[in-house]
Amino acid sequence: MVFSVAVAGASGYAGGELLRLLSGHPEFEVRTVTAHSNAGQRLVDVQPQLRSLAHLTLVDTTPENLSGHDAVFVALPHGKSGELTAHLPNDTLVVDCGADHRLENPDDWAAFYGGDYFGSWTYGVPELVTANGKQRDRIVAARRIAAPGCNASTVALALAPGIHAGVIEAQDLVAVLAVGPSGAGKSLKLPNLAAEILGSANPYAVGGTHRHIPEIVQALRWAQSAASTSARDATISFTPVIVPMSRGILATATARLVPGTSAAAVRAAWESAYADEPFVHVLPEGHFPRTADVLGANTALIGLAVDEAAGRVVTITAIDNLVKGTAGAAIQSANIALGLTETLGLTMNGVAP
Amino acid sequence: MVFSVAVAGASGYAGGELLRLLSGHPEFEVRTVTAHSNAGQRLVDVQPQLRSLAHLTLVDTTPENLSGHDAVFVALPHGKSGELTAHLPNDTLVVDCGADHRLENPDDWAAFYGGDYFGSWTYGVPELVTANGKQRDRIVAARRIAAPGCNASTVALALAPGIHAGVIEAQDLVAVLAVGPSGAGKSLKLPNLAAEILGSANPYAVGGTHRHIPEIVQALRWAQSAASTSARDATISFTPVIVPMSRGILATATARLVPGTSAAAVRAAWESAYADEPFVHVLPEGHFPRTADVLGANTALIGLAVDEAAGRVVTITAIDNLVKGTAGAAIQSANIALGLTETLGLTMNGVAP
Amino acid sequence: MVFSVAVAGASGYAGGELLRLLSGHPEFEVRTVTAHSNAGQRLVDVQPQLRSLAHLTLVDTTPENLSGHDAVFVALPHGKSGELTAHLPNDTLVVDCGADHRLENPDDWAAFYGGDYFGSWTYGVPELVTANGKQRDRIVAARRIAAPGCNASTVALALAPGIHAGVIEAQDLVAVLAVGPSGAGKSLKLPNLAAEILGSANPYAVGGTHRHIPEIVQALRWAQSAASTSARDATISFTPVIVPMSRGILATATARLVPGTSAAAVRAAWESAYADEPFVHVLPEGHFPRTADVLGANTALIGLAVDEAAGRVVTITAIDNLVKGTAGAAIQSANIALGLTETLGLTMNGVAP
Amino acid sequence: MVFSVAVAGASGYAGGELLRLLSGHPEFEVRTVTAHSNAGQRLVDVQPQLRSLAHLTLVDTTPENLSGHDAVFVALPHGKSGELTAHLPNDTLVVDCGADHRLENPDDWAAFYGGDYFGSWTYGVPELVTANGKQRDRIVAARRIAAPGCNASTVALALAPGIHAGVIEAQDLVAVLAVGPSGAGKSLKLPNLAAEILGSANPYAVGGTHRHIPEIVQALRWAQSAASTSARDATISFTPVIVPMSRGILATATARLVPGTSAAAVRAAWESAYADEPFVHVLPEGHFPRTADVLGANTALIGLAVDEAAGRVVTITAIDNLVKGTAGAAIQSANIALGLTETLGLTMNGVAP
Repeated sequence: MVFSVAVAGASGYAGGELLRLLSGHPEFEVRTVTAHSNAGQRLVDVQPQLRSLAHLTLVDTTPENLSGHDAVFVALPHGKSGELTAHLPNDTLVVDCGADHRLENPDDWAAFYGGDYFGSWTYGVPELVTANGKQRDRIVAARRIAAPGCNASTVALALAPGIHAGVIEAQDLVAVLAVGPSGAGKSLKLPNLAAEILGSANPYAVGGTHRHIPEIVQALRWAQSAASTSARDATISFTPVIVPMSRGILATATARLVPGTSAAAVRAAWESAYADEPFVHVLPEGHFPRTADVLGANTALIGLAVDEAAGRVVTITAIDNLVKGTAGAAIQSANIALGLTETLGLTMNGVAP
Repeated sequence: MVFSVAVAGASGYAGGELLRLLSGHPEFEVRTVTAHSNAGQRLVDVQPQLRSLAHLTLVDTTPENLSGHDAVFVALPHGKSGELTAHLPNDTLVVDCGADHRLENPDDWAAFYGGDYFGSWTYGVPELVTANGKQRDRIVAARRIAAPGCNASTVALALAPGIHAGVIEAQDLVAVLAVGPSGAGKSLKLPNLAAEILGSANPYAVGGTHRHIPEIVQALRWAQSAASTSARDATISFTPVIVPMSRGILATATARLVPGTSAAAVRAAWESAYADEPFVHVLPEGHFPRTADVLGANTALIGLAVDEAAGRVVTITAIDNLVKGTAGAAIQSANIALGLTETLGLTMNGVAP
Repeated sequence: MVFSVAVAGASGYAGGELLRLLSGHPEFEVRTVTAHSNAGQRLVDVQPQLRSLAHLTLVDTTPENLSGHDAVFVALPHGKSGELTAHLPNDTLVVDCGADHRLENPDDWAAFYGGDYFGSWTYGVPELVTANGKQRDRIVAARRIAAPGCNASTVALALAPGIHAGVIEAQDLVAVLAVGPSGAGKSLKLPNLAAEILGSANPYAVGGTHRHIPEIVQALRWAQSAASTSARDATISFTPVIVPMSRGILATATARLVPGTSAAAVRAAWESAYADEPFVHVLPEGHFPRTADVLGANTALIGLAVDEAAGRVVTITAIDNLVKGTAGAAIQSANIALGLTETLGLTMNGVAP
Repeated sequence: MVFSVAVAGASGYAGGELLRLLSGHPEFEVRTVTAHSNAGQRLVDVQPQLRSLAHLTLVDTTPENLSGHDAVFVALPHGKSGELTAHLPNDTLVVDCGADHRLENPDDWAAFYGGDYFGSWTYGVPELVTANGKQRDRIVAARRIAAPGCNASTVALALAPGIHAGVIEAQDLVAVLAVGPSGAGKSLKLPNLAAEILGSANPYAVGGTHRHIPEIVQALRWAQSAASTSARDATISFTPVIVPMSRGILATATARLVPGTSAAAVRAAWESAYADEPFVHVLPEGHFPRTADVLGANTALIGLAVDEAAGRVVTITAIDNLVKGTAGAAIQSANIALGLTETLGLTMNGVAP
């Protein structure tokens, strides 16, 4: 069976990546692509990399244009999805790549985003360990899925196993991320210009203001178990740094080692969490990932070290922000929700160098 | 039917890209991967992007290890393929990504490469227009194929249609290429260091010394037809410039417009040459390609302009040097030679941004 | 004596570079910096790299604010300088880094820019060989100077010696430039975004439409001498390609070798033209420049090859578009006009790697 | 008075940067440049960016060639300076940019470097706050100076004020650095190739193994005062990440806020430490530096935030690893030691964009 698909926000970076992946997916057929200011243009004139979809033309982003599909993928700026998707039938699979439906707590939404709150959907990070099994279990048969924030899912995947197993403390986490500017979308702002970013490393949202922080805390709350050292919410110092690569996130996320924990126990926590996962891999001792290794792939690679002198576990996690961080997570979740093989249309191999 | 495959030179960039593409090919199964100094290592430790091939271990590059496969892909430095492949049975498909078998004329080999000459094989650029149909026709059922030089095939695809149709002159061609450093392989030389290339544009092989020049001239000789303005060999000023992107070639190749030729006739020459090609696309008037549009794809995108004031036709061609320029061309040619669907295992969509 | 200086357009890239160079100039003191939307802000908040000018605050770009200085440097978008500078006294040195006063021929202005034409000023490329000595001679004591277009001066410096000496033909020139995006200024347009440029080579203004073409032709017209092969205007195929480096131009400019000319005569033409120049250097046989070699410097480096087989002379020229291409040329010209040592405040050494 | 200068290791990146800065220094004259494998070549053929030093030729790195100068700057791999400089007279100023003389504790040397230990010299970070005034006081009249490790001085400058003032804890520091590959020198190793680094973020020396860690701990030990929360040595989790920019370090260094400390007290600690420093600037609230802002400059820019929710002070520090991190620190220290104006030959303005 082939499922008919619409993509809302098809002219942005996330929309383009959804379409790149969908175009190679054997069970999805893209019927409709929508846009705002680019409506009326051929898709391939806006997304010239999508040669196989040269037959598609962008139409307006309206409930009418999105209705009548088996699955709708939404890649709009936050605040734009809530009302639009409210018009879609309950049995249509809707996967939102924006932030609108990620946060369970309305206060978090108000504090970090603001505007109307439309409630939370099933969080689309299948591999996340939680107190009650993997998040995958909740995605099965879901019809409303919130694809994760790219930084948030990276850090959550990096740290959840250790918190879940009680080998690291959930308080005083520190994450610093090297990120590519495609995560900012096609926003025409000075800091996004090439001349501002080439040859430079540029921090932003420093000091606890980044919108992905409550999403990380929420995911780590789910990860907490009886073995965790504390039931209190995680606290995290989170700093993203834009570096001159178009895509990719390399997250250095560290946590205090629970005193007395062996390095073997640390490694076992991560390896057991991801042992059977097709898209999350824990690298052997002494190996650490590079973002190039996951370019274009739906893979998260995690390297792990215990720094005894510093009293910290250091995790290094590489993902492609537009794939595993956004569009790939969306399609992986859709595969699960629709009962398809989870890996369909996704690759675990990166385009390197 | 699934064909068993070996890749010689699996630890280099071209070898890695062959394996990335082969890993997603439904009719090929990689059984053997060989290397020189890396033999004995797990493939994934040398090519950490190839997660789906984590079960493979590199073995020595010997005729014994390469024998017994339906197809052997060779990605070795030039001069290393000739003797090695001489030991393989005649009915084994061998595709060489190195230069050893590209040049028909031993004098060209001696002048630009030197060392033993092992004769030419069928040139693996299916879309090349020749006096007797497409090059594809010669690849059907071939068992020895020479994948092209990345710069050479780019320039040949860019200019052959106009020479074939007699709308541009074959003399006094000028090509300047912006190229990524992955084309130089993993060679440990000072000019290949990141600190030498980041933030800089670096020319090399200036003034007619680049090894791909005789290959271009040879391909354009095949393209010459009764309509061509001259039967003499093409002359070309060819300058590659290394720029700070890992992959990609953007070739600006210009030629003198045959006086009296209309812009429509120019466009028609290229459009008719590539009208039915899955992997070579002529962009509409006023559109020009970027290398990001073809990253990871087996696509060549060609933009075309007639500069009346300068008396030149300007072609802009974008390819991924490791895909359409090397590994993708090899697999596309293998598909043709083995009677498979030509596009199997290859994508026409690029990973952008 | 210290000259008081104002800079109009101080919040842009060219303005920032003028100020970086002026801040280290022993005979200039920056008193006034003007801007449009950024007026009222501290300069260092808009140009955080200019720590030594932290005492300056941006004021509106008005004739009043610019008056009362010995020298005024203007770095505004084209079309903005003509009327503004008309209000400045005739004995104030005004150097315009925009295009408004570069072209002698109103028809060229109309064809490539449009809008009101305010006449041409002395062209600020001191090293340019002309039929009547160096352009430097015209800059001495000038009070209105048009700093050159960065691409135009690069190509003019690259080719003028050969045309002047009659060793290359002025017709059928071909120039392809790898250029950094800072040349486009802080313009908030999609093609200038980092995600569009990182990892890619992007052509623009293909096919004879770039605004620097008439400026090149004009400069080469001045260079033509009795020795030149033709008195007709130069014709040039000119293609710029944006590559992922913040600054720099690497121009590959080729010309047909006049038949019968020796390689030694070619080299002699360039070496004699630039023998005594502090900022333009012809590299030895077999050496070619990289843009990193001139980063931040007021230097143009030129490499030269004769490609006998192609019948072309190949020149490779590297400059920093914001220094030798814009701000450095402006200050060098100002030094000359004011009777100062020509090299004051300028370095010939690049910041590499 | 002009001091005669020799530079040992003039063909490397640090040596080249020393020479770039020395060439613009009004009181230093470079008489001798030495190299190993490049001896006999013109300096400008090895360092083509140094046009003003085209008259110099590289000679062998021997005590004889280095003797007879007022000042000798050494930029050799670690382990090469100790014996070489032992032959130089005691009253010659020697500044070593390598690691040989940075560490006071022979055990640290043995644990992180190994090989012969030649004792520590005066540490060349003038702005470092210590229990007994600024480190500058120790540099005055010194004749043996150890220029700092680039990562080490960045982190030390970032954190020392807070530890000294007792507003942050010295235990459980976490630093993650985005660094350019020029810090690795011209070492011909696979991870330094452009194709490995372009488009990617690559961690190295993860988990407490980096050689700059004992140097950081040593500098922070000196910074501890009676106000510090603990006399124990600092502990730090330190992770460098190579990103695709040729130069620059952006250090995100965080520390636990001492409970009850106000944000104003935090800011006051840093601002008072650096109030009168020409080359270290604390940015206003809400401002954070980019590495482009300090490219080519001897400046360290520090941004500061208090993240109450995370309980951490976040510092973001940008330097140019080859200037403030190496060659600029060396020259600044030499200025102090020789009684010159401290800022001579150094700029505080960066080359941006």
